[in-house]
Amino acid sequence: MNLISGGVCAAKGFTASGVHCGIRKNRTKKDLALIYSEQKASAAAVYTTNLVKGAPLAVTKAHLSDGKAQAVICNSGNANTCNANGIEIAEKMSELAAEALGISPCDVVVASTGVIGQPLDIAPIAGGIPSLVKQLSDKGGADAAEGIMTTDTVMKEVAVEFTLGGKTCRIGGIAKGSGMIHPNMATMLVFITTDAAVSPAMLQKALSTDIASTFNMVSVDGDTSTNDMVTVLANGMAGNAEIAEENADFMVFMKALNTVTVHLCRMIAGDGEGATKLLECNVSGAKTEEAAKTVAKSVVCSSLLKAAMFGADANWGRVLCAIGYSGADVDVDKIDVSFASRAGKVDVCKGGAGIDFSEETAKTVLSEKEINILVALNDGDAGATAWGCDLTYDYVKINGDYRT
Amino acid sequence: MNLISGGVCAAKGFTASGVHCGIRKNRTKKDLALIYSEQKASAAAVYTTNLVKGAPLAVTKAHLSDGKAQAVICNSGNANTCNANGIEIAEKMSELAAEALGISPCDVVVASTGVIGQPLDIAPIAGGIPSLVKQLSDKGGADAAEGIMTTDTVMKEVAVEFTLGGKTCRIGGIAKGSGMIHPNMATMLVFITTDAAVSPAMLQKALSTDIASTFNMVSVDGDTSTNDMVTVLANGMAGNAEIAEENADFMVFMKALNTVTVHLCRMIAGDGEGATKLLECNVSGAKTEEAAKTVAKSVVCSSLLKAAMFGADANWGRVLCAIGYSGADVDVDKIDVSFASRAGKVDVCKGGAGIDFSEETAKTVLSEKEINILVALNDGDAGATAWGCDLTYDYVKINGDYRT
Repeated sequence: MNLISGGVCAAKGFTASGVHCGIRKNRTKKDLALIYSEQKASAAAVYTTNLVKGAPLAVTKAHLSDGKAQAVICNSGNANTCNANGIEIAEKMSELAAEALGISPCDVVVASTGVIGQPLDIAPIAGGIPSLVKQLSDKGGADAAEGIMTTDTVMKEVAVEFTLGGKTCRIGGIAKGSGMIHPNMATMLVFITTDAAVSPAMLQKALSTDIASTFNMVSVDGDTSTNDMVTVLANGMAGNAEIAEENADFMVFMKALNTVTVHLCRMIAGDGEGATKLLECNVSGAKTEEAAKTVAKSVVCSSLLKAAMFGADANWGRVLCAIGYSGADVDVDKIDVSFASRAGKVDVCKGGAGIDFSEETAKTVLSEKEINILVALNDGDAGATAWGCDLTYDYVKINGDYRT
Repeated sequence: MNLISGGVCAAKGFTASGVHCGIRKNRTKKDLALIYSEQKASAAAVYTTNLVKGAPLAVTKAHLSDGKAQAVICNSGNANTCNANGIEIAEKMSELAAEALGISPCDVVVASTGVIGQPLDIAPIAGGIPSLVKQLSDKGGADAAEGIMTTDTVMKEVAVEFTLGGKTCRIGGIAKGSGMIHPNMATMLVFITTDAAVSPAMLQKALSTDIASTFNMVSVDGDTSTNDMVTVLANGMAGNAEIAEENADFMVFMKALNTVTVHLCRMIAGDGEGATKLLECNVSGAKTEEAAKTVAKSVVCSSLLKAAMFGADANWGRVLCAIGYSGADVDVDKIDVSFASRAGKVDVCKGGAGIDFSEETAKTVLSEKEINILVALNDGDAGATAWGCDLTYDYVKINGDYRT
């Protein structure tokens, strides 16, 4: 399993593009992205659990009812949510893209991200689609990744290469994260492409299984967005025997998918709105996987701990506090806590009580960009990992006046 | 029902005091508080739901098992939590206070608030108790209120006067809030005193009923503290017929208690760490009270909305988003949202979709210190209120380096 370049265009038969069409005022920001597969692909998706759902999600869900798709169109700058004509606009977006690509509107995944409750004008999208289609290229993954960014500060893409039955396969993805990132699903936009042959049912199974320990374990601010989703297109052009059951190939595919999704999770958490640090909480020794997940999520969601991490303050009491109110069945008197990073590791709590540690070492460990919070519950064999970020002045600044 | 001065000393027979004994480094900050009742009182309490519980809570719980108490001792600056000798220290605090007051240690409520996981030295407390007892006075309510403050910026006390069977009764309270305030219970320290005669069982019933719509509906940052509790002492010195069942007097007492607790809730939320605004979310038209509460809490807990309120930005999409992920059973297409304050009211969303409104008016409304977020679900008759605060640069600053 090798990391390679190319993002959503790494897999055979996929091209992509991104342009500025005029939804966002800043002309240097791309605001429309397209991904296209030469051949019709198996398609799977997971959607936000928010009851308030963006109109594009309903339209995409209808389009994917046959488990097939051939293109993804996504705009940033406007979420097309809580608008009276939202469905109409999302359908129009699909139709215009389909027409320009010469495919059926039912094979188009449509997505929007940005401000909620402001009508989305179809005009700039209609105007942008011709150049979007014209610019489709197997080098266009990064342009598409840029086109879906909102307050993201870095473009997020990744791809890996692996083999299935002797055939070289590739899987790659792009993501848009930043604010409003919280379990559960589908709290960001993620578009994944692969040339592996996978049946729609097994593709959905792979995705639904994977997100439980990846995207559903990422939190930036506890707010679950109305709009976000993860989709996978698998066009089969790698030529492997189609995965249609839970065989050895399925396990290899799951592993490749997981490499891509974990990578994107870390990028999304590390680039949370205003974040200066990626936090990873590794819980071990839990009675059940559910308990491990609950504890890990509670720790990375704690505003108090997130602020302490911003200040590189080894305030482990806040870790214990977050475990205590998580609702998980834990024995407080057995809990050990350590902080770790590239700069080393410092044990701060044993058996639920504080131990002596060097504040200086702790400061060095916590001054790194990626912090691991290690929680040993010492009460079983289950584990889990969750990702988050620190809480900073800039989070407040970005969200204090987002609409202007 | 009249608001009066005096806090925990408003009721007959109660005296209080507060001193700096040396737990906190800053000598201008009081860090030890005492409340004393001339006569032994009925006592009731509710405690944090955090599994990690401060040692003082266990000791207090044991002391209140007979439903009686006569004094409250509380220190700030150290939570006496996650320490190997926590119980021992909390018991010693009770014993020293009891000895100085000439009462039984079993009639002492003991509490601590501050940093978790640093051993609490009994020496400054032992040294401070003599002057604490000496300074007991019916003018000492404010001193006690100061003694329990941590990052609070304002002292919190309130009292009201009412009548029961022709007898004038009083009920007053002090609170410590600021960070780590989140449903459910007992997410702050609140000490309430009354001279009404109420049986221990009815006092507990009144308190447990009341907190469901008061302290459990306050959120500052989503973190539920390990240490906090609400206690009520009722010494009966007003001379009313003891309330021992759910009669008319009980209802009057409940109303008086609720006036005190709502007042303290608003003070706690408005003085949340770093807060510049008090947010009150009023939900109406819910199918059930549970749904109304869930929606109200979700709105005041949303980091995105809290940051928008800091910026006086009428980003109502974030209100809808928070309702959508709350888990409550609502019909999104029926929801109306308005913002209101002393400066007026502005309707921003009708039937789940945005409506035209003056951004200028909205800015004026949202620039006030107390903001009401009005959510009409138009789907039933139940309602609820929750309190919170905005999310500001200062919250991050305060919590980025709390321990130093």
